[in-house]
Amino acid sequence: MSLIEKLQWRYATKKMDSSKVVPQEKVDQILEAIRLTASSSGLQPYEVIVITNKEILEKIKAVSNNQAQITEGSHLLVFAAWDNYTVERINDAFDMTEKARNFTSEAGTAYRQMLLKIYPTRDAETNFTHTAKQAYIGLGTALIAAAYEQVDCTPMEGFNPAAVDEILNLKEKGLRSVVLLPLGYRKADEDWLINLKKVRRTKEQFISWIK
Amino acid sequence: MSLIEKLQWRYATKKMDSSKVVPQEKVDQILEAIRLTASSSGLQPYEVIVITNKEILEKIKAVSNNQAQITEGSHLLVFAAWDNYTVERINDAFDMTEKARNFTSEAGTAYRQMLLKIYPTRDAETNFTHTAKQAYIGLGTALIAAAYEQVDCTPMEGFNPAAVDEILNLKEKGLRSVVLLPLGYRKADEDWLINLKKVRRTKEQFISWIK
Repeated sequence: MSLIEKLQWRYATKKMDSSKVVPQEKVDQILEAIRLTASSSGLQPYEVIVITNKEILEKIKAVSNNQAQITEGSHLLVFAAWDNYTVERINDAFDMTEKARNFTSEAGTAYRQMLLKIYPTRDAETNFTHTAKQAYIGLGTALIAAAYEQVDCTPMEGFNPAAVDEILNLKEKGLRSVVLLPLGYRKADEDWLINLKKVRRTKEQFISWIK
Repeated sequence: MSLIEKLQWRYATKKMDSSKVVPQEKVDQILEAIRLTASSSGLQPYEVIVITNKEILEKIKAVSNNQAQITEGSHLLVFAAWDNYTVERINDAFDMTEKARNFTSEAGTAYRQMLLKIYPTRDAETNFTHTAKQAYIGLGTALIAAAYEQVDCTPMEGFNPAAVDEILNLKEKGLRSVVLLPLGYRKADEDWLINLKKVRRTKEQFISWIK
């Protein structure tokens, strides 16, 4: 199956088979794809929390419009973005990179100073909008990595972020939940969406060319 | 090469070989991956503009900190998100889906009404933050699709969005540029980044488990 065929196979699974568990190896591949994907200035300003604990999953479902995939899937990924850019977080990221590469440069130092000047002085909400977008790059990568592994998933924004933050104690870690992604396997005979056509705007509507 | 190996191969290319052109077939695969990926409520609240016109590319480079990949790459993708959610845009998306599926449901109608009640009444900036995030799902998908096709790319936020919007007349289309993605091929012997180690937070730092 080509990557495009896998993306056609993918859909926002509405009913998952709670008797099936995604193998650790496949979960690890999806997580590794997220870890390796791009982020602005390489800061990776978010974390991924993987939840299999049934009690916690029930609590999250209760503040997520009772979306059943949260407990029917075997793993829930919570994308949690930095609540703000701080001097410490930016320095930590640059320090880590310089140390791993055993390499510093004038251009690199100037770039670090530029970010230190701009980011920590902006308001937290502007920064959170930016960190959340980076988490969405991770989400876009996770979706395609899951499809590649033939694992089903359902991206979800329909939850109460403040309540999820509280359940997971995210505030004290300087994180805010931005999007959820249950992983599991479709229960084909009980999923209302599975046989409905995937609908997208046509190429002509979605893409334009300036040649 | 596995998907993970391709993601390790991928990097934010700093120097592209302007003598090489990404074949149409590969560009089409990357665009199709973006078109097929997920978006909130399936609204696809953004468009992709593909630019190969050298004059326009020069203009965009001039308002993008002169980042050379914009003209060295053979194609520039501009992700342009809806500037707002309107009643018309939401209805168009639902109408298109219902028509393509020849299917309506009470739940679908209720869902449409819920979005019509919430989205168009929120301020434009809140809606744009939301539409831009969906474009970032497209970006995350594009990055991995490009890696899959062994095409290089460089995601870019370092540009003047208002200036790009003006060059491309996006305002009159109700769009705002959010991120750029030049496609091309690395010029390995002139790229300072290519031999530096890819640095990411460790699994232990980036991922946590609640079992």
